[in-house]
Amino acid sequence: MTEDRVYNFSAGPSILPEEVLRRAKAEIMNYHGSGMSVMEMSHRSPVFSEIFQDTKAKLRSLLRVPETHEILFLQGGATLQFAAIPMNLMEGGTADYAVTGNFSKKAAKEAEKYGTVHIAYDTGDTGHDRIPTQEELQLSPEAKYFYYCANNTIYGTEWQYVPETKAPLVCDMSSDILSRPVEVSRFGLIYAGAQKNMAPAGLTVVIVDKALAGRELPFTPQIMSYETMIQNDSLLNTPPCWCIYMLSLVLDWLKEQGGVEGMEQLKRERAKRLYDCLEESRLFRLHAQPGSRSDMNVTFRTGDADLDAAFIRYAAEKGLVNLKGHKVAGGMRASLYNAMPMEGVDALVNTIKEFERKHV
Amino acid sequence: MTEDRVYNFSAGPSILPEEVLRRAKAEIMNYHGSGMSVMEMSHRSPVFSEIFQDTKAKLRSLLRVPETHEILFLQGGATLQFAAIPMNLMEGGTADYAVTGNFSKKAAKEAEKYGTVHIAYDTGDTGHDRIPTQEELQLSPEAKYFYYCANNTIYGTEWQYVPETKAPLVCDMSSDILSRPVEVSRFGLIYAGAQKNMAPAGLTVVIVDKALAGRELPFTPQIMSYETMIQNDSLLNTPPCWCIYMLSLVLDWLKEQGGVEGMEQLKRERAKRLYDCLEESRLFRLHAQPGSRSDMNVTFRTGDADLDAAFIRYAAEKGLVNLKGHKVAGGMRASLYNAMPMEGVDALVNTIKEFERKHV
Repeated sequence: MTEDRVYNFSAGPSILPEEVLRRAKAEIMNYHGSGMSVMEMSHRSPVFSEIFQDTKAKLRSLLRVPETHEILFLQGGATLQFAAIPMNLMEGGTADYAVTGNFSKKAAKEAEKYGTVHIAYDTGDTGHDRIPTQEELQLSPEAKYFYYCANNTIYGTEWQYVPETKAPLVCDMSSDILSRPVEVSRFGLIYAGAQKNMAPAGLTVVIVDKALAGRELPFTPQIMSYETMIQNDSLLNTPPCWCIYMLSLVLDWLKEQGGVEGMEQLKRERAKRLYDCLEESRLFRLHAQPGSRSDMNVTFRTGDADLDAAFIRYAAEKGLVNLKGHKVAGGMRASLYNAMPMEGVDALVNTIKEFERKHV
Repeated sequence: MTEDRVYNFSAGPSILPEEVLRRAKAEIMNYHGSGMSVMEMSHRSPVFSEIFQDTKAKLRSLLRVPETHEILFLQGGATLQFAAIPMNLMEGGTADYAVTGNFSKKAAKEAEKYGTVHIAYDTGDTGHDRIPTQEELQLSPEAKYFYYCANNTIYGTEWQYVPETKAPLVCDMSSDILSRPVEVSRFGLIYAGAQKNMAPAGLTVVIVDKALAGRELPFTPQIMSYETMIQNDSLLNTPPCWCIYMLSLVLDWLKEQGGVEGMEQLKRERAKRLYDCLEESRLFRLHAQPGSRSDMNVTFRTGDADLDAAFIRYAAEKGLVNLKGHKVAGGMRASLYNAMPMEGVDALVNTIKEFERKHV
């Protein structure tokens, strides 16, 4: 890290590659000789259209999105998708929801406004410390789709498998998209808020099987209709242009790092170093159960809230910031997104060991 | 203009003050010693909370928003508000819409999904070249609200008065907010996409009378409920943090320029210089009628599409860009938002005169 920057373990919005920020800085007053900032460009101008189409093409290539699926650049975050998904896909019928954390719970609750929500599994009774197995999932024969959240930032769990279901899979990949290869054709819909692994907050990427579009409820706002947004190539109205541009820079960086395969190797290595340290620890213990642990968000605690707070302060003094766990989970959470350099993980491991030596 | 920048007459997204871009550039890698970019900050961190609250306070002060009204920072642009407004305020009843251009027409059409739309006036029969008078407005006694668009970017017209209605006023001020003082207490709801006079695309500012909240239809998405967003101070989910930060920089700049009173003086002077030139012209004619003309978007044409295109090319060669009119209106459009320096207007006036000398 340079320019007095910190290691930022925030769960989102979160760290961006320093190289990406440096490029944005260089181009912020005058993008590629256009005489203006990307923030000042008409979304229908040739110069911005090129950024837009290029970003889509790069994402399609990196995630190997088949032509059956459209990529949409939307606004409103996961929270708007909690409503858009049932409005577009539920047809007033039933959908299966796997509740493995805070966000899938919120998604299920919102969907109740638009049809019948069937909870396929709820891990709430053990504090969302694990992911259900395929066998545990209770699937409805009439489900219009099966909904799950691939990675649970708050509790630090991650699905290690793609569920087998008859109904189309709908997956919130907000916190692990682009961290591993995904067989997109297996999904009816994938979506992700950009602010964890992709770009600044304000952009939501939706990848939808075009065959599922056109079934929205009559009162669906035009901007929330996948069919309408597909027809307009996301440009029914002004998109979040700057975030799309930032995504484009992140995708260039990601490609140079070896694409999603490169990201997967790095994420496994980052997580391994931190989990190994915490498993050996006599002071800290992990929240998530083995086999369900997230490579993106590592949740741990001492069991003593004051000691947790002392650790968070100790780390912050060393430039390791935003390690406090989410308010509903407590303890600590280290988010290890794509942009987190390995030195950041090593610095955290060393800090954990130092703190432990002083307190055990 | 420096750094080889152009005069950008785009209708939106549009020009930002050069000084604002310069500040953003200086802080992009490390905001105020935080060690991170604003794009990387948790929206619930103390450092971002300060930016958020400070931006709200500055906007409240500059627009003199009374305590009866809440300021919301949302996503989805005007297009999402086209649905959110009737979902929240129409109660399945009737609302009056004044159709004076493309965007009020779209708003009225979207509202039909949620209740009965009564067209109070439609200026479509004369190509939306004027604003109706108070006497022409046909108001329904049972209207839940009266909707209008204060400034029509495509046709270059602007309401020179605030309508008198029994029903609460709902106004789209996307393209003239912060360009003149507004008596906010007269409005039930004011909203504006940020990408014209405020900030980069991706932020929608809503100023709503709190007494009107809490009447949303049962299927309203949580994120579209004004009541819910008021209760959560816009932070139900992650807001478009970078756009809010950019708005904060724009508001600082605006205050230094004399606030909305200063902006009003400048906008009248910019518009006067361009309208005077075009009224004297023997080549160009204005689209909008006197008394209805916009200070923000000046629409003009030669009457010959090829000559219009030649003018647009001629101006672009001189660094005056994005003068092409909207596809539904044709001709030229010069957007003179707050950030347009007077030298840009003078350069356009000179270019018009030069072109005229060559072609008359």
